[in-house]
Amino acid sequence: MLENVDLTKTLPKEEYKTIMEDLKIQMGELQRKAWKMDIPIIIVFEGWHASGMSEIINRFLLTLSPMGFNLHTTGRPCYQEEQKPLLWRFWTKIPQKGRMAIFDRSWYRRIIIEHNKKGKANKNMQKCLSNLTYFERQLTDGGYLLIKLFLHISKDEQDKRYGEMKDTGIPQFIIEEEERDYLNGYDKYLPLIEGILEKTDRSFAPWTIVEADDRNFATVKVLAKVIESIEYRIQDLENKELLEQNQKKDTCVIPNIDSSILEKINPDKSLTYEEYKAEKKKCQKKLKTLQYDLFRNRIPLIVVFEGWDASGKGGGIRRLVKKLNPRLYQVTPVGVPTPDELRRHYLWRFYNQIPEAGHIGIYDRSWYGRVLVERVEDLCNVEEWKRAYREINEFEETLSNYGTIIVKFWMHIDKDEQLRRFKEREKVDYKQWKITPDDWRNREKWNLYLDAADEMLTKTSTSWAPWTIVESNDKYYSRIKIMNTVIGRIESELKERGLQ
Amino acid sequence: MLENVDLTKTLPKEEYKTIMEDLKIQMGELQRKAWKMDIPIIIVFEGWHASGMSEIINRFLLTLSPMGFNLHTTGRPCYQEEQKPLLWRFWTKIPQKGRMAIFDRSWYRRIIIEHNKKGKANKNMQKCLSNLTYFERQLTDGGYLLIKLFLHISKDEQDKRYGEMKDTGIPQFIIEEEERDYLNGYDKYLPLIEGILEKTDRSFAPWTIVEADDRNFATVKVLAKVIESIEYRIQDLENKELLEQNQKKDTCVIPNIDSSILEKINPDKSLTYEEYKAEKKKCQKKLKTLQYDLFRNRIPLIVVFEGWDASGKGGGIRRLVKKLNPRLYQVTPVGVPTPDELRRHYLWRFYNQIPEAGHIGIYDRSWYGRVLVERVEDLCNVEEWKRAYREINEFEETLSNYGTIIVKFWMHIDKDEQLRRFKEREKVDYKQWKITPDDWRNREKWNLYLDAADEMLTKTSTSWAPWTIVESNDKYYSRIKIMNTVIGRIESELKERGLQ
Repeated sequence: MLENVDLTKTLPKEEYKTIMEDLKIQMGELQRKAWKMDIPIIIVFEGWHASGMSEIINRFLLTLSPMGFNLHTTGRPCYQEEQKPLLWRFWTKIPQKGRMAIFDRSWYRRIIIEHNKKGKANKNMQKCLSNLTYFERQLTDGGYLLIKLFLHISKDEQDKRYGEMKDTGIPQFIIEEEERDYLNGYDKYLPLIEGILEKTDRSFAPWTIVEADDRNFATVKVLAKVIESIEYRIQDLENKELLEQNQKKDTCVIPNIDSSILEKINPDKSLTYEEYKAEKKKCQKKLKTLQYDLFRNRIPLIVVFEGWDASGKGGGIRRLVKKLNPRLYQVTPVGVPTPDELRRHYLWRFYNQIPEAGHIGIYDRSWYGRVLVERVEDLCNVEEWKRAYREINEFEETLSNYGTIIVKFWMHIDKDEQLRRFKEREKVDYKQWKITPDDWRNREKWNLYLDAADEMLTKTSTSWAPWTIVESNDKYYSRIKIMNTVIGRIESELKERGLQ
Repeated sequence: MLENVDLTKTLPKEEYKTIMEDLKIQMGELQRKAWKMDIPIIIVFEGWHASGMSEIINRFLLTLSPMGFNLHTTGRPCYQEEQKPLLWRFWTKIPQKGRMAIFDRSWYRRIIIEHNKKGKANKNMQKCLSNLTYFERQLTDGGYLLIKLFLHISKDEQDKRYGEMKDTGIPQFIIEEEERDYLNGYDKYLPLIEGILEKTDRSFAPWTIVEADDRNFATVKVLAKVIESIEYRIQDLENKELLEQNQKKDTCVIPNIDSSILEKINPDKSLTYEEYKAEKKKCQKKLKTLQYDLFRNRIPLIVVFEGWDASGKGGGIRRLVKKLNPRLYQVTPVGVPTPDELRRHYLWRFYNQIPEAGHIGIYDRSWYGRVLVERVEDLCNVEEWKRAYREINEFEETLSNYGTIIVKFWMHIDKDEQLRRFKEREKVDYKQWKITPDDWRNREKWNLYLDAADEMLTKTSTSWAPWTIVESNDKYYSRIKIMNTVIGRIESELKERGLQ
């Protein structure tokens, strides 16, 4: 994509000024329109060293209202960022609806630098690229407009600029050590970048090569491209609205005719109190040791609890963490999203909450809400929750690629047992707050939730993040099964990675 | 406070279990009640090494609903935290209304460690302690319940526990290098800690010493203290409500009878276009250089823009940043707070946005909204905005103590000029969005805003953060004055610090 680009294009100063006056007004209007139409926009700037990125970005920013954007400069990851998967720092910075996030270098620069630093074979690079394809597709599927710009200059031009910088004393101290190789490796990096650009030039997130030997020309091209992209998106949305008005909606859900996985489960397995007590003590002691093994090896662990209301998620979690060091684990209850969360991609809140390397993240309900409560209660549309199976698998694959161990529990009780527990909660004084009208309403939709759970268990049980169904009519049995499953997974993972 | 503490108190296991069962139920109820009453709670755990903090905290957490709290472990600051004042990392973590933030070590531990590392004289310590008194008073004034606990063990007990740890292989790798001195310096640190505890044992944020030689006793004392504190707070609030119902409200505002500062200002100073053009070029070039001086010396700069509607804040900012590197500055427009922001202390959002060391933070409106729009539009009560003058001075002093340069502009135009600009905005197509009914409404309250601005300028012009009134009827004059003021302040600060 970089070959045969005509880099001789220029724009004289006076012409540039006139065009910019005009584009600035257009840009201002579009920014306000996108804001009103709730379109979230992500603009990625990549390019060679000395391609004039700072200056071009600054000129671009000056056409925008500061109310509507955030600029994110991507440099060396800080300690916290190093303890999370590469894409975490970008996921957490996606804009809310109607706003713009501008990345001054992005996940691409990080991949290029990391690739060079580690000098690993292409296998790792493939994983990286597929993770970021997930990322970009999830965003654009979720309504984000993604504009990717590569500022391209010739090697001669780069050399010339380096010479000028030396003369004018532009501060070199801003350039980080790890970038030095890229700084002086035009010919070495050309084929690498060419390859990455080609592989990631997807219909949902295409690249625009910006000829940047002339800064005026480049600035105008950047601005024109952004304006064009936003205009197209606005047209698309307006057409879609028209289309929807004229069409009868007929997205139908085909009922699940496969046999149910859960119906075959007998949730009645049990343990005596003595068995429970002895096992519990053993398990908790073991977990305490394993927690430090995870920390020492910087392996993050995620434990997800899903299941029926009153199936014992809270009690299971409390026994699991009883002897753990609170500095190394966190329990995250997942409820109704906040207004801030609603204005972003639904996975945003979960990226914000992933455990750092060596820590344990425990979730009392989770991202599976998308295909459970949000599906059953019509909180998202059919297209959205159907897409979510793939998105969730991709999300977990991305975490797993980073080294995260993922354990997922479906806490299973039958309808009679639930009724018994609801009634007990109503009876016992200090348990009453645990039972709300919502619980009774959910119970009425038992079969809808059963279908949803069945489909979820089928479609999201992967080799990297399998589900475990926990027979939970008996709390003793259930708690021990949870602890033993977690212990088993940690031990086998440590073994597999040659750490034990 | 640590002397003469009786550390022999113990609690046998069976008795402990019974008491805990009871306290757990009480705690659960109070947590839900505090949630409903919107009480934000901060609990600070400090103490000796090997005082059993992790375990005691974990036992305490197990009595809580995970829905209602966050645990924050305070270790060595990460890169980002090092680029901000010490209290930044704590300010950004204060809980929202109804929730609990628990600090496993806190600002106190940081101060102790920093003090030891730098080995500086008490002068710096004094500054630190006064900054954190501001912090604690601002929080408690803002309705936060602050509970501070110190887990105290004897030196003999500590030695005994170190011995046991060696035997059982409790992981030492969790302890950070910089803590080693504290680890082995009981006698050395005793007087230091004693002094800090005494100086910070304030009525609004008292210390509780927890005898921790026996962990059961300590856990129960922690829980009992938290329960007691929340109960008192709930009673206070209920009494206050009663009181307010029975009392006629008579908080009256004494009108400002001093002569107005602003009335004496003639906003009509002007420059010709030629003068402006020449000056502008010179200033922007200078600012570009100074920006790198700030970065090199890791000095943060804050520039605040306040002033009348249509006084040219936006235009002034654009000229100021025109030639700057966008990686090193950020423009933050301050508008209506988000729901998340409304659920916390009003300074929280501003702590979240302070520039890191070496960067420039520019504010289009700011924390002064508290004593301007919030005062005039009754968005906070009289007591709150009256208190805000002191709080804002303290806030800026804290930043200044860290090394931040603070420049504040009041953009001043007269009423006729404002009218002319409003009308022009209505006339010109692409400027119409800039004028809203709100602007006309604010204009009607000109005199109220004038009083508020006058009082603000008087009460918040400090040696560390003085106000500059910018005569802005003429945009050329105004923009140049802004740039020259910023340049002047940076240069004199660099000089004063021996950096130029």
